[in-house]
Amino acid sequence: MVIYAVIMAGGVGSRFWPSSREKTPKQLLNMFGENSLIKDTVTRLKGVVKNENIYVVTNNVQKPEIVKHLPFIPEMNIVAEPFGRNTAACIGLSTIIINDKSEDAVIVTLPADHLITDVEKFRETILTAAEYAYKNDSLVTIGISPTRPETGYGYIQIDKPVDENVFKVKTFAEKPNYETAVLFLKSGDFYWNSGMFIWKASTILNEFKKFMPELYEGLEEIQTRIGAKDFYEKVAHIYGLLKNISIDYGVMEKTSKAYIIKGEFDWSDVGSWEAVYELSIKDRAGNCVVGDSYLINTENSYVDSQNKFTAVIGASRLIIIDTKDALLICDRDRAQEVKLVVDYLKLNKRNELL
Amino acid sequence: MVIYAVIMAGGVGSRFWPSSREKTPKQLLNMFGENSLIKDTVTRLKGVVKNENIYVVTNNVQKPEIVKHLPFIPEMNIVAEPFGRNTAACIGLSTIIINDKSEDAVIVTLPADHLITDVEKFRETILTAAEYAYKNDSLVTIGISPTRPETGYGYIQIDKPVDENVFKVKTFAEKPNYETAVLFLKSGDFYWNSGMFIWKASTILNEFKKFMPELYEGLEEIQTRIGAKDFYEKVAHIYGLLKNISIDYGVMEKTSKAYIIKGEFDWSDVGSWEAVYELSIKDRAGNCVVGDSYLINTENSYVDSQNKFTAVIGASRLIIIDTKDALLICDRDRAQEVKLVVDYLKLNKRNELL
Repeated sequence: MVIYAVIMAGGVGSRFWPSSREKTPKQLLNMFGENSLIKDTVTRLKGVVKNENIYVVTNNVQKPEIVKHLPFIPEMNIVAEPFGRNTAACIGLSTIIINDKSEDAVIVTLPADHLITDVEKFRETILTAAEYAYKNDSLVTIGISPTRPETGYGYIQIDKPVDENVFKVKTFAEKPNYETAVLFLKSGDFYWNSGMFIWKASTILNEFKKFMPELYEGLEEIQTRIGAKDFYEKVAHIYGLLKNISIDYGVMEKTSKAYIIKGEFDWSDVGSWEAVYELSIKDRAGNCVVGDSYLINTENSYVDSQNKFTAVIGASRLIIIDTKDALLICDRDRAQEVKLVVDYLKLNKRNELL
Repeated sequence: MVIYAVIMAGGVGSRFWPSSREKTPKQLLNMFGENSLIKDTVTRLKGVVKNENIYVVTNNVQKPEIVKHLPFIPEMNIVAEPFGRNTAACIGLSTIIINDKSEDAVIVTLPADHLITDVEKFRETILTAAEYAYKNDSLVTIGISPTRPETGYGYIQIDKPVDENVFKVKTFAEKPNYETAVLFLKSGDFYWNSGMFIWKASTILNEFKKFMPELYEGLEEIQTRIGAKDFYEKVAHIYGLLKNISIDYGVMEKTSKAYIIKGEFDWSDVGSWEAVYELSIKDRAGNCVVGDSYLINTENSYVDSQNKFTAVIGASRLIIIDTKDALLICDRDRAQEVKLVVDYLKLNKRNELL
């Protein structure tokens, strides 16, 4: 068994405007310390996956920045999709590249922009998952024990246990409304879908063949061009014919081989500035401040102003993000609406701010 | 009778940080249109006072900017005090300079940073006041009919009328508390003290002699140096010996020659960002926006961001002022606390932000 990793890093993260931009999206930001989320994601695999076996799937706009953030990963392993075609295509493309290199590969597929601080537990879980997937020809996901009735995550319901901490998947559930999320939390057998997948290259390719034959045929064609000059041209051609389908919808919800391992580590998909606030260390007034600021009668707010002195008076539950060319002031309860600003900027062709 | 004007422009206006700075204080800002408050103050005198008879008293830090704002005023007329010694000294200094030029002068003394839009009524009032002061050897102030129980202004109580719209002053009252302000408003004989004064040079000099003999003697010494090379040295020497006393406390509250004319025009001393908000034209959501901004679910707020795109989501009653090197976010109800930021910056020797 040789473990490979695929880091999915094509997202834009428009909820993190004005810090996130097309060239420096969420996974390239460092909201929680010195390193970007993508660098932390790769570093977290130390001792589990060798750097030469780590692949990143991104796009041409982000690739140069990602190469800079991950100098220890071979540049060849930073794969740029011609355009996004959701997670199924992304996983398909990376799988045939890795399968071409090693026929015994177990692939750990991870989002680039999540936060996990309990690194030891994470590594243990990944190793357990890889071993189970390798031995049992299974599609393994990692489920996180819910701590609140979160409506922003998908859920996975577990069935009977098949091994220590490993369960058969009963069903995948979309993001629930609040009432349903409360029921999920009470039931005890619903877990947050972390978007992490572990399987053998051969297992997932067989499932593509079964449930997504068009994608599978496209991947076979692409495989013939690995190492050739027109590789990316071929990928672009095939991608143009593919539907935009997630791996959850395309494979996981249909297969009989889905298993779930409980991830007993902290986890967040860091979905908005509100999540950043929640995950940050606050002072006694409940404020988190990055940069040169002076706060008077201000509470439960997040201030990120790294370019200029900022004074805040009498604010409550505000998110304040000042960058060189744009400023955001947002009520914490409306952090989801930040993407409306990005929509507005797109509509008005304010490309310099995107 | 020759009418002169003295514009008192030494104030710092720390409540308008970050827009106001030591070199560009409140009177040099243009919150209400194209022109700065000081330029509007001077322009308002058109047809009443000739430009060559308009004097501005400021300090050395502000003088260069003021000269730029008022190119139509002789530069000689922009007088820089060596340091501030309150309004009595400022008025004394300008009076002896003007008295040296004309023995028949009526001087209209005005703050540089107030807002008046009904210019015609203002001019009528000034002319009436000048005529009354000239003929009756009086110290005339302008009182504004209060429209609300304002606690931020001083009040003047009127006595019996002595002419059309002219009353003897009964008493000067300091800024009242709310309950007192309500009583003042109900009584009908209390008027806002606008800080505008009209008198003959000879009248006020006599009153200085009577009530502020130290100042008067100093002014006599300064008078001997008008036109001399060491004029400003002499002023600095005399100023160093003077007490910090306002014209209200030093003369107006003691004299028997105080009269008040009702100013039947709109007036505001524009005391804070909250006042700027109140005086600005708002959209239907109650917002006033200057600069390139996008507001979502935001109401009753003031956004001045002239250097960069600003998005505001879910804000209510906020003042947002973004300048090149500093940013202020302030609850409208706490606009008075902006001066605490300036105090903080002084304490921490952040002179570049002052």
